[in-house]
Amino acid sequence: MVKVKIVGAGGYGGIGMIELVLRHPEARLVSLVDIANVGESIADVHPHLRGLCDLTIRAPGEDDFGDADVVFTATPDGVGQKVATDVLAAGAKLIDYSGDFRCANAADYAVYAARIGRDTTHALPDLLDEAAYGVTELHRDAIAGARVVGNPGCFAVSCILGIAPAVKAGAVGRERIIFDSKTGVSGAGIKPHAVFHFPERYENMNAYKVMAHQHQVEIEQELSRQAGGEVRIALVTQVVPLCRGIMTTAYADLDAGWDLAKVHAAFADFYAGCPFIRVMKPGAPSSNNNVRGSNFCDVSVHVDERTGTLLAVSHIDNLMKGQAGSALQNMNVMFGLDETLGLLHAGHRP
Amino acid sequence: MVKVKIVGAGGYGGIGMIELVLRHPEARLVSLVDIANVGESIADVHPHLRGLCDLTIRAPGEDDFGDADVVFTATPDGVGQKVATDVLAAGAKLIDYSGDFRCANAADYAVYAARIGRDTTHALPDLLDEAAYGVTELHRDAIAGARVVGNPGCFAVSCILGIAPAVKAGAVGRERIIFDSKTGVSGAGIKPHAVFHFPERYENMNAYKVMAHQHQVEIEQELSRQAGGEVRIALVTQVVPLCRGIMTTAYADLDAGWDLAKVHAAFADFYAGCPFIRVMKPGAPSSNNNVRGSNFCDVSVHVDERTGTLLAVSHIDNLMKGQAGSALQNMNVMFGLDETLGLLHAGHRP
Amino acid sequence: MVKVKIVGAGGYGGIGMIELVLRHPEARLVSLVDIANVGESIADVHPHLRGLCDLTIRAPGEDDFGDADVVFTATPDGVGQKVATDVLAAGAKLIDYSGDFRCANAADYAVYAARIGRDTTHALPDLLDEAAYGVTELHRDAIAGARVVGNPGCFAVSCILGIAPAVKAGAVGRERIIFDSKTGVSGAGIKPHAVFHFPERYENMNAYKVMAHQHQVEIEQELSRQAGGEVRIALVTQVVPLCRGIMTTAYADLDAGWDLAKVHAAFADFYAGCPFIRVMKPGAPSSNNNVRGSNFCDVSVHVDERTGTLLAVSHIDNLMKGQAGSALQNMNVMFGLDETLGLLHAGHRP
Amino acid sequence: MVKVKIVGAGGYGGIGMIELVLRHPEARLVSLVDIANVGESIADVHPHLRGLCDLTIRAPGEDDFGDADVVFTATPDGVGQKVATDVLAAGAKLIDYSGDFRCANAADYAVYAARIGRDTTHALPDLLDEAAYGVTELHRDAIAGARVVGNPGCFAVSCILGIAPAVKAGAVGRERIIFDSKTGVSGAGIKPHAVFHFPERYENMNAYKVMAHQHQVEIEQELSRQAGGEVRIALVTQVVPLCRGIMTTAYADLDAGWDLAKVHAAFADFYAGCPFIRVMKPGAPSSNNNVRGSNFCDVSVHVDERTGTLLAVSHIDNLMKGQAGSALQNMNVMFGLDETLGLLHAGHRP
Repeated sequence: MVKVKIVGAGGYGGIGMIELVLRHPEARLVSLVDIANVGESIADVHPHLRGLCDLTIRAPGEDDFGDADVVFTATPDGVGQKVATDVLAAGAKLIDYSGDFRCANAADYAVYAARIGRDTTHALPDLLDEAAYGVTELHRDAIAGARVVGNPGCFAVSCILGIAPAVKAGAVGRERIIFDSKTGVSGAGIKPHAVFHFPERYENMNAYKVMAHQHQVEIEQELSRQAGGEVRIALVTQVVPLCRGIMTTAYADLDAGWDLAKVHAAFADFYAGCPFIRVMKPGAPSSNNNVRGSNFCDVSVHVDERTGTLLAVSHIDNLMKGQAGSALQNMNVMFGLDETLGLLHAGHRP
Repeated sequence: MVKVKIVGAGGYGGIGMIELVLRHPEARLVSLVDIANVGESIADVHPHLRGLCDLTIRAPGEDDFGDADVVFTATPDGVGQKVATDVLAAGAKLIDYSGDFRCANAADYAVYAARIGRDTTHALPDLLDEAAYGVTELHRDAIAGARVVGNPGCFAVSCILGIAPAVKAGAVGRERIIFDSKTGVSGAGIKPHAVFHFPERYENMNAYKVMAHQHQVEIEQELSRQAGGEVRIALVTQVVPLCRGIMTTAYADLDAGWDLAKVHAAFADFYAGCPFIRVMKPGAPSSNNNVRGSNFCDVSVHVDERTGTLLAVSHIDNLMKGQAGSALQNMNVMFGLDETLGLLHAGHRP
Repeated sequence: MVKVKIVGAGGYGGIGMIELVLRHPEARLVSLVDIANVGESIADVHPHLRGLCDLTIRAPGEDDFGDADVVFTATPDGVGQKVATDVLAAGAKLIDYSGDFRCANAADYAVYAARIGRDTTHALPDLLDEAAYGVTELHRDAIAGARVVGNPGCFAVSCILGIAPAVKAGAVGRERIIFDSKTGVSGAGIKPHAVFHFPERYENMNAYKVMAHQHQVEIEQELSRQAGGEVRIALVTQVVPLCRGIMTTAYADLDAGWDLAKVHAAFADFYAGCPFIRVMKPGAPSSNNNVRGSNFCDVSVHVDERTGTLLAVSHIDNLMKGQAGSALQNMNVMFGLDETLGLLHAGHRP
Repeated sequence: MVKVKIVGAGGYGGIGMIELVLRHPEARLVSLVDIANVGESIADVHPHLRGLCDLTIRAPGEDDFGDADVVFTATPDGVGQKVATDVLAAGAKLIDYSGDFRCANAADYAVYAARIGRDTTHALPDLLDEAAYGVTELHRDAIAGARVVGNPGCFAVSCILGIAPAVKAGAVGRERIIFDSKTGVSGAGIKPHAVFHFPERYENMNAYKVMAHQHQVEIEQELSRQAGGEVRIALVTQVVPLCRGIMTTAYADLDAGWDLAKVHAAFADFYAGCPFIRVMKPGAPSSNNNVRGSNFCDVSVHVDERTGTLLAVSHIDNLMKGQAGSALQNMNVMFGLDETLGLLHAGHRP
């Protein structure tokens, strides 16, 4: 039984992990930490948990990490690198939701940190070398042996899983891949904001951080790793009026010698043995409904021969495969459990 | 391991049961029947199930009922009474979603059937006597011994659970209880209709079947049973633009000698030992968010001394406690399993 | 040409008035005042107005009221009674959106003010006597002669218009009328809040301020005026996940000697000459879609003889007939213009 | 006073025109035609029009076209070319919503017709030569002199207005422009369908007709006209869960010698004198909220120097600038009225 501690338990990332661990046959919650609602029962703060979990929210530092086998830091950037040393010293493993441990080295981190206006000096650069990047399908072995996992950004999961097989196979140009990514509103977190106020959002859509989103850094890192050379991307993030889901349409220049059948085969091959990736048959419809509430990523590929374009469409639930689901999948791998334990289920329809 | 057959597998009631059984530790699906998409895999019809269930949809009559321990007829009125004899003859139990087995006798059924424009003669009147009414909290023992359960209507669950303790305790007048019930759109089922077309519905709300809804019959039956005498109700059903959920505000005339504390105590007492009913502390907020995706029913009570009014507010997920969740809870009871098996979990938030 | 000044121009109530005045043939905007975004163009703050209005937002007190014929205080409680003396001294008329001028006298105001936690002493009690209550259909003559109008609360418009004809006709009991009122989220205003954050609201519904909402005071005042004696109500306000609209289901005890036809005739008679009230034929469906974006109030009546219940269902757009629309209708009346000028149009469908 | 006849009055395109004409100072409705609800009042079919319009719906052919100055065929493909001869013979002008009169010649029409599975032979090829393409901003003079206007497709308006200035200026490559277009659900029309059923759509998004949508034909036609040479596009149409609006993100290869300032100037220059096109300042946010309910098209441009990408983002209301609004704008131009008459207003916010 893996003992789980969640730091940042009261946000969407923390709640999502609570819900998952409560139904996981080999894990149990031992501690919930947050800076808000300290001393209250999580079930009073989030009453959908009444009758299921009555842990009290503790303040950061109120207890140490010794009672946990794994700590999830479901927190903004900066918290992970602050607590990592203590977590590891206590013998626990760390899965961090933020960008703190996603970059391969301190130089790359500096680029990322600048983009979000943070101090560009990483507090624990040695851990960057050691940490695994948490897209399980790409780094399963590294994750299995890691003490620290940098859980991927939600847009990054969507973009990387959508196009990685084509990049790996050398089917597309590396000079520019365009990612047009549409997210539901839960991606913005639990904190209210004028642009996510219901009356402002229910009939709204807009692009933001256009070709300047911080997830671009990790997407280029991972696609370059797959390509064995530099890949450049243009990422245009958008918000549409639904709660859970990311749909990414990825556009790449298809190389000569590739057609739809060959591309599809490359995707099917790449994701063989990946229970959460469902490569759609050519022409089959895909939609957010099919992944919402689950840890699946559905990917479909299209080719426009007239313009030499490969289009890959990927769908995930941003709070599951894009966040807590991937984190739990990583935990399973880190602790030698079946990768799918507590995760292989459908969301509700409708 | 309880072997489950679902008739009407492709509608919302059937899908909901599939999702639940797939995660139930002591039940498994053996057969899916529907009149649409016969011969196709359920995972092609409802692709959120890909990788989880690959049963082929069979036509009615294509196989008998002998391979199942329990048959769920997630079907419109009339199917249950058509197949019940065969189900029982094959040694299986029957849980029917429609109004076929909710009424206590043939006379009451005639009233109900007239209201929905069906033949008022029940095909199997003897089974009406034998069948249990499937609000588990009110008929646990009868359900445990029943071969046939009439699963309750979604509005009926909401109304009955919201006010039954007050009626039982004699705290309110029986001449008229008003139920103002707001449902999400999934209550109308999977079949498209002009008034549920997204553009017509996303900003719409309306009352319908005003004080003439067929669920009135079973609500009066059950409340009269609790009261030990005739109870009359006025039920005003409404549709609001969300997918899953029913909120009922029930208004009753509070008898002299009753105040909020006494009423609240009666509710707490009535629902002691009922893991899915959460009676809210007086003044505590309740909302659909807390029950959506789960089998819980949250109930809160309020008293307006100025007008002598008891207000009870109840929240359920119409597809869970209002349909498939209650049905599975009944199955657990009928097969001697823990009532909460496969059901005691939270919905996703948000 | 009526010169219009709006105080509180940047909130939903102010924006709604700007949109209306821009299309009004006999009114024009001369000044916009707000405490936020002072010095900015309204078109930069609310870019849907780009190309239509380029007035700069002024701070309160930055100019006097002399340039306006009418001042709309689209502000929270307290502002109206603070500026009224200056407005009138400058020769302008005042239409106030808050509760400042809705009560008939200082004693009633004290009850109202206590309910919202404000100082119970009115600053200008003499103006309470003089001010007209702004449901045009009930007080057309008084409004025509008034210098100050207390524009009604959105729930109050919905409840009063829904049942006033029955009360006036003596068709229903006065001991208790129940109003079950469902509002869209825009009723909460433009300021973000945790419970109106899109992910928390899109699938949510809940009751709040149960039988304790401040609009109860003005509803009882107005219905008592119609009845010629005290009327008591129980008001249960609820939020459902749409943006614009209030649907109220009003339950009253129908007196002996009244039936549906007679009640319907009373409604038709009461609203003869009221261009914005559409009394539906018995049995005809009504819905929020029909009033959204317009100044109409659609009312339908139902009778349940079995329980002696009159049900009236009323629909309004809370930001139009429930706020800015009523305010403009009152302005028309106050300035001797056709009551419907700039208002008699349909909302968009869908 | 322009006398207006609408064929297809009961669909979203027809209703939108009714709403607009009712508020237009120089136009009035004389006849409504539809194949459904013949003989009923339009106000009974669409009750939001009660009190505003009581025309009876006539069957096609029930009257001739002699009573109208302009006929809008708000109908599917095929109707326009069927009635055009009669309309013109009666001395009226024709504005057709479908693809019947958008193509420059019979050969291009054959390509278009094949894509939607229709007979590839145009019934009135001579009229194709004569008809004007109805994006007012590009063909104002031709429209002013035309007897027949082919009103543009909703996606086409969005794509063409978003990128035309860059194409015209020679700022971008012609080999491939990518249009990633997201539409609200009203674009699918009033007829219910399984995928637009509220429970299936409220949390859904998906791509469809991927790089195969019929609007591609007219977009390439118009952009090629602007470029003075062949332009190829890849159009990926998507549905997101809102009602009104299209957001298109257009990606083009920026030529050497162009930067953001120069591109922005080209856009501002191109749209000088176009009251409905609002070119956003570089960096200013844009969103669907700002155009919903209005005839505006908001366009913003972005440059990513790293990948040599020009991104243009355009927003329209698909039922206004994407359909009825453009049609009315064209009517104004055809009848020598101010282009903005009855159209220059904001939608409601929120």
